[in-house]
Amino acid sequence: MKLDIAVLSGDGIGPEVTAQAIKTLDAIAHTFNHSFIFKEGLVGAIAIDQTGNPLPDETLELCVNTDAVLFGAIGDPKYDNNPSATVRPEQGLLKLRKELGLYANIRPVKAYETLIDKSPLKREIIEGTDISIYRELTGGIYFGEKKLSKDGTVASDLCEYSKEEIERITHLAFKAAQKRRKKLTLVDKANVLESSRLWRKVVTEIATQYSDVALDFLFVDNAAMQMILNPSQFDVILTENMFGDIISDEASVIGGSIGLLASASVGNTCCMFEPIHGSYPQATGKGIANPIAAILSAAMLLEHFNLLGEANAIRNAVEKALELNLTTPDLNSTNPLTTEKVGDFIADYI
Amino acid sequence: MKLDIAVLSGDGIGPEVTAQAIKTLDAIAHTFNHSFIFKEGLVGAIAIDQTGNPLPDETLELCVNTDAVLFGAIGDPKYDNNPSATVRPEQGLLKLRKELGLYANIRPVKAYETLIDKSPLKREIIEGTDISIYRELTGGIYFGEKKLSKDGTVASDLCEYSKEEIERITHLAFKAAQKRRKKLTLVDKANVLESSRLWRKVVTEIATQYSDVALDFLFVDNAAMQMILNPSQFDVILTENMFGDIISDEASVIGGSIGLLASASVGNTCCMFEPIHGSYPQATGKGIANPIAAILSAAMLLEHFNLLGEANAIRNAVEKALELNLTTPDLNSTNPLTTEKVGDFIADYI
Ligand SMILES: CC(C)[C@H](C(=O)O)[C@@H](O)C(=O)O
Ligand SMILES: CC(C)[C@H](C(=O)O)[C@@H](O)C(=O)O
Repeated sequence: MKLDIAVLSGDGIGPEVTAQAIKTLDAIAHTFNHSFIFKEGLVGAIAIDQTGNPLPDETLELCVNTDAVLFGAIGDPKYDNNPSATVRPEQGLLKLRKELGLYANIRPVKAYETLIDKSPLKREIIEGTDISIYRELTGGIYFGEKKLSKDGTVASDLCEYSKEEIERITHLAFKAAQKRRKKLTLVDKANVLESSRLWRKVVTEIATQYSDVALDFLFVDNAAMQMILNPSQFDVILTENMFGDIISDEASVIGGSIGLLASASVGNTCCMFEPIHGSYPQATGKGIANPIAAILSAAMLLEHFNLLGEANAIRNAVEKALELNLTTPDLNSTNPLTTEKVGDFIADYI
Repeated sequence: MKLDIAVLSGDGIGPEVTAQAIKTLDAIAHTFNHSFIFKEGLVGAIAIDQTGNPLPDETLELCVNTDAVLFGAIGDPKYDNNPSATVRPEQGLLKLRKELGLYANIRPVKAYETLIDKSPLKREIIEGTDISIYRELTGGIYFGEKKLSKDGTVASDLCEYSKEEIERITHLAFKAAQKRRKKLTLVDKANVLESSRLWRKVVTEIATQYSDVALDFLFVDNAAMQMILNPSQFDVILTENMFGDIISDEASVIGGSIGLLASASVGNTCCMFEPIHGSYPQATGKGIANPIAAILSAAMLLEHFNLLGEANAIRNAVEKALELNLTTPDLNSTNPLTTEKVGDFIADYI
C-alpha cells in the first residue's frame, strides 16, 4: 500500500516522539513492503514563531491532500499565562480538527498487566479495564460563539449541538460497541443542560438500531467518580467535546502511564493520529519523553487503513519493550533508555 | 445562640440522613445551651409530586426568612431518563441557589487516616490530602440562556461570567487560602474558552492583594489527572460552576468514602449546608445510608456562625464513630450499624 502521511510534529516533545513513530512506520514499510511518504508541516507555537499563524495555509493544504495526519503535540507555556494573547498554539489544533472535519476522537484506555502496579489506583480496581472513549471533537463549547464585552467585563462561550452532529459520532460509537463488549455509556449533564438533553434524546433514538448493545447514561460528575471507583465497568463511552476532554484525561492516568496512550481523530474523509500526552515542555530535548504513545498512534493509523497485521507488529514490539522494561524514565527509574533508544528497539524488533 | 434553621430534606436518602443531622444539632443545643428552631420545607421530586413545583414559593420564603438552610438531597430516576420532562427536581436546587444568592460552594476533601485503606487510590498517593474546593455556584453554563430550536434539532447552553461574579468568590477563596497552606489553584480551560480567560485575568489581578498566597493555574483536563496522580499538591482550588461540579465529585472519592463529605454554600445574606452524596435512590428507606456527610454539614453550619467548639464537638464524635467502626455498610461490611444508630451514637457522644 502507498500512503501519503502529513507529519505535524508541533511543539515541546512533539518532534522527538513523532520521529520515533516515523522510524517505526519506516520499519513497517520495509518489512511489509509498503510505501509511506512523509511530508512535514508546521503547527502550533513553532508555527506562530515562524509564520505568525498556528495553522499556516500550506499546512492545512498539505493535510487535506494526504491520506492521514501524524500529529505530535502543541502548546507552549509562554501563551498559557497570557490571557490576552490573541494568537495561541491551540487554535492551530482546533482549526485543523474543524477544517478536516475530524468529528470523532477515539481514545482507548487499557490497563497493561506489566504496568498495573505503576497506577495510582489499586490493582483490584483497575484490573481488566479496557475502555474506548468516543469524544465528539468539532462541536460544543469549543466551537460555539465566543464573546467578550467591549469593556472586557463579561465573557461567554456557547455550547451548541445539532442532531446531525450527535448522530454521526453516535453511529460510530455503537458500531464500535458491537465489536467489543456491547455496552455504551453516554456521559452528559442532562439534569442541567439543554444540549445534554438533546444528546440523550438522539442517542436513545439511535439505540433502537443497535439492539444488541446495552445503553446506559451517567451524569458527568458521577462519571468522574465511577472512573476511579470502578473503571472496568465501562466498555464504550460516548460524550460531547468538553466532557470528553476531561473524562478522557482522567481515564488516561488509571492505566499507569499517560505516556502510552494513543488517539485517533476521524471524519468522513480525513484522519489524524496523535499521542494524548501533550507538549510536556519541561521534558523537551532531554531524551526522556516516552515515545510509545506516538508509536501506538502510528499503529492506530495502520489499523484505520485495515493493515491489521502491521498494527499488531507494532503492538507486539511495544509489549516486548514493556516486558523487558526497555523504557523511558517515567516507567523505568533504575535503568532508563532515551526516547530514541526506545524507538530504535521497537523499530528493530519489527 | 438562637438560630432558625430551614430543613429541606428532599428526595431519596435525604430525609433519613437529615434526621440524623437534626438529632446531632439538638444534642449540641442541649449541651451548649443554644436554641435551634427547625422548620421543614418541600423541595425536589417530592415537591413536584405534592405541588407540581420543585421549589414551592412557601419553601423559598421559609429559606429567605431563616438563618440557615439544612439541605438533604434531590433527584429521582423517573426524571433522569426523560429528556422531555419540563419540570425536574434539580430545578428546585438550582433555583434555590440562585434566589438565595449562594454563589460559593465550599467542599472540603480530606483523607481520614482510619479510611485511607478504603480509597481506590493507593495510600502513598492520598496521604496528607486536605483540599478545600471553592466552586462558583450561581453562574456559568448552569444559568446561561438555554435554547432548543422549534423543530427540536438544535440545542444550546450559554456559559457566561461577569467580572463581579468572579471577583466575589475569588476573594473568599484567597481568604481561605491565607488561613490554610497559602496556595490557590485556579482550574479553567483558558486555552479554549473566553470565559476562562476572563477568570484567569480577574484572578491574576486580585492575587496582587493576597501576596502571601501562591497562585497557580491548571487546565481542567490536567486537573482531572492531577487529582488522581497527586491530590496532596492541592490546597485551595478555585473554579467555575461546571468544572467545579466535575472536579469536586472526582475528588470526593479519593478519601475513601463519599458518605463523609459535607459542603457549605454561601452568599452575602444566606447560607446552606448539604451532604454532597445526592439522593442515592437505590438505598432509600433501607437504613444503609451514611449519615455522616449530613452530620458534618451541620458542623459546617455551626462553624459558619462561629460556634467553633460546637463544630468540633461534632467532628470529635464523628471521628470516634469512625475509630470504633460504628458505621454504615459502606464503611463496615462485617458488622454495620443502621443510619439511625450511627446518628444515635454521635448524638449521645456529644
Ligand atoms: C490542547 C487542547 C486545546 C486540547 C483540547 O482541549 O481538546 C487537548 O487538551 C486535547 O484533549 O487534545
Ligand atoms: C443535582 C445537580 C443539579 C447538582 C449540580 O450539578 O450542581 C449536583 O450534582 C451538585 O453538585 O450539587
